[in-house]
Amino acid sequence: MLRISRLDLAEAHMLIEAAAAKAEEIAVPMCIAVADESGNLIAFTRMDGAKISSIAIAIDKAFTAAAARGTTERYNGLCVPGQPTFGIHNTNGGRFCIIGGGVPIIVEGTVIGAVGLSAGTAEQDVVCAEAAAAHFYEQKGVRQP
Amino acid sequence: MLRISRLDLAEAHMLIEAAAAKAEEIAVPMCIAVADESGNLIAFTRMDGAKISSIAIAIDKAFTAAAARGTTERYNGLCVPGQPTFGIHNTNGGRFCIIGGGVPIIVEGTVIGAVGLSAGTAEQDVVCAEAAAAHFYEQKGVRQP
Amino acid sequence: MLRISRLDLAEAHMLIEAAAAKAEEIAVPMCIAVADESGNLIAFTRMDGAKISSIAIAIDKAFTAAAARGTTERYNGLCVPGQPTFGIHNTNGGRFCIIGGGVPIIVEGTVIGAVGLSAGTAEQDVVCAEAAAAHFYEQKGVRQP
Amino acid sequence: MLRISRLDLAEAHMLIEAAAAKAEEIAVPMCIAVADESGNLIAFTRMDGAKISSIAIAIDKAFTAAAARGTTERYNGLCVPGQPTFGIHNTNGGRFCIIGGGVPIIVEGTVIGAVGLSAGTAEQDVVCAEAAAAHFYEQKGVRQP
Repeated sequence: MLRISRLDLAEAHMLIEAAAAKAEEIAVPMCIAVADESGNLIAFTRMDGAKISSIAIAIDKAFTAAAARGTTERYNGLCVPGQPTFGIHNTNGGRFCIIGGGVPIIVEGTVIGAVGLSAGTAEQDVVCAEAAAAHFYEQKGVRQP
Repeated sequence: MLRISRLDLAEAHMLIEAAAAKAEEIAVPMCIAVADESGNLIAFTRMDGAKISSIAIAIDKAFTAAAARGTTERYNGLCVPGQPTFGIHNTNGGRFCIIGGGVPIIVEGTVIGAVGLSAGTAEQDVVCAEAAAAHFYEQKGVRQP
Repeated sequence: MLRISRLDLAEAHMLIEAAAAKAEEIAVPMCIAVADESGNLIAFTRMDGAKISSIAIAIDKAFTAAAARGTTERYNGLCVPGQPTFGIHNTNGGRFCIIGGGVPIIVEGTVIGAVGLSAGTAEQDVVCAEAAAAHFYEQKGVRQP
Repeated sequence: MLRISRLDLAEAHMLIEAAAAKAEEIAVPMCIAVADESGNLIAFTRMDGAKISSIAIAIDKAFTAAAARGTTERYNGLCVPGQPTFGIHNTNGGRFCIIGGGVPIIVEGTVIGAVGLSAGTAEQDVVCAEAAAAHFYEQKGVRQP
């Protein structure tokens, strides 16, 4: 039997609140999703004014960062025609999102969930996702991976 | 041009908190979703311990109650083989959910969104969804439809 | 509660008629879709002779331009391998269309819907979509965004 | 942070071997799937001669029994037109399988995964799934739930 560590709901809310605070700071209403280590959704918030198309993208970024255990931004660089990983964006029923803004939450070397944001530029989404993760690590007294 | 009324994020959170309070009272951890009047997700919470299969069901109940402007429970009674509405559960890409637990939020005769719950029996889901809606109407000083 | 502005059906018809007039002028029978601000279809016309594969494309272009609040053409320029937004064409169940011909309708800085065309070259689709939007702004006495 | 118990691969293989032994005994080549507690596939075996259509069914039965935390057979009894749970077979993108043969594995009151079988009659699938679960509990010295 395996013992798996997983974000709980309070931690998911902490991530969403920190992400939303950063999104407000840069004045971009965002869709914010938190997934567990298996990629399943724990919590989601669409800030007033955030784009409708970003609902699915935020959820899929969180799914991807958790399930593939890496930032979605990293896959953006790998998923280029002619390169070995090209095509990965088509997998998992098209849910494998390679646009920056999905960031895994890692505690003691293990992915326990992920946060995913969408609505701004990929760069803005990354900034907010990383701010959420940094806040989580700080609050939890966990060393940033 | 039409002017549409829509739940805002604070109202969605109010609905989720009221639904979660009722779910705790009956000791069934739930998945709770709130959709806007067009069926698009505003907020979602998976209480610790809620079933994984209930994530999609809660979201689809909120979608259905908003988009079809009626409780999902009502469609349960209509969607019976040999009856005129049978088959509606297959529509909208299978997202049309006919299990009780999706309740529209109606202000001045207009659906402005919906709440959807899943994880208990259909009856338990209905109880929590209705508690959320009742709390909303009371807090807002709106007459229950 | 939010107050949302949305194209009404008469306005959707105005957009379709203007798009069809341009399509006739350039002698390309088109599929023409109008979505509301949430991306849901308001009206659709397949001109006699228009391609079958363009039905879905026109509907998805209107969805994308409304839900993502930008021209589909703009996303075509952003969704290039190696660039941060690459992969967005796979999101939203593959409905995020990055081929030109989807144009949001913007009133006082707010997207109230979108028109999407398909059947010609991307350039021809764009010409017709922009003609429809321009006609709408002129008829409504709204400054072109 | 939550601590989740999950079947490991050796346990998944034990389940598959026990299920296959029963399938051989009743002379029905089966598709056999084991999912983790989140519904994600751990191991899968298609016995020589098993039906192709049973690949997806076995995987979905294991998904359902794990994610919904009950036997698929139980949902078969609940998902009857006119009853409150009717329609659940359509949810989760149609993956919610209500045909007997999916059985959760429960240790100390917690679902840690599930086994799903398909190829025979529903009754035969159930017999093999239950044999696999019983073997697991016996080998592990865990009281059958």
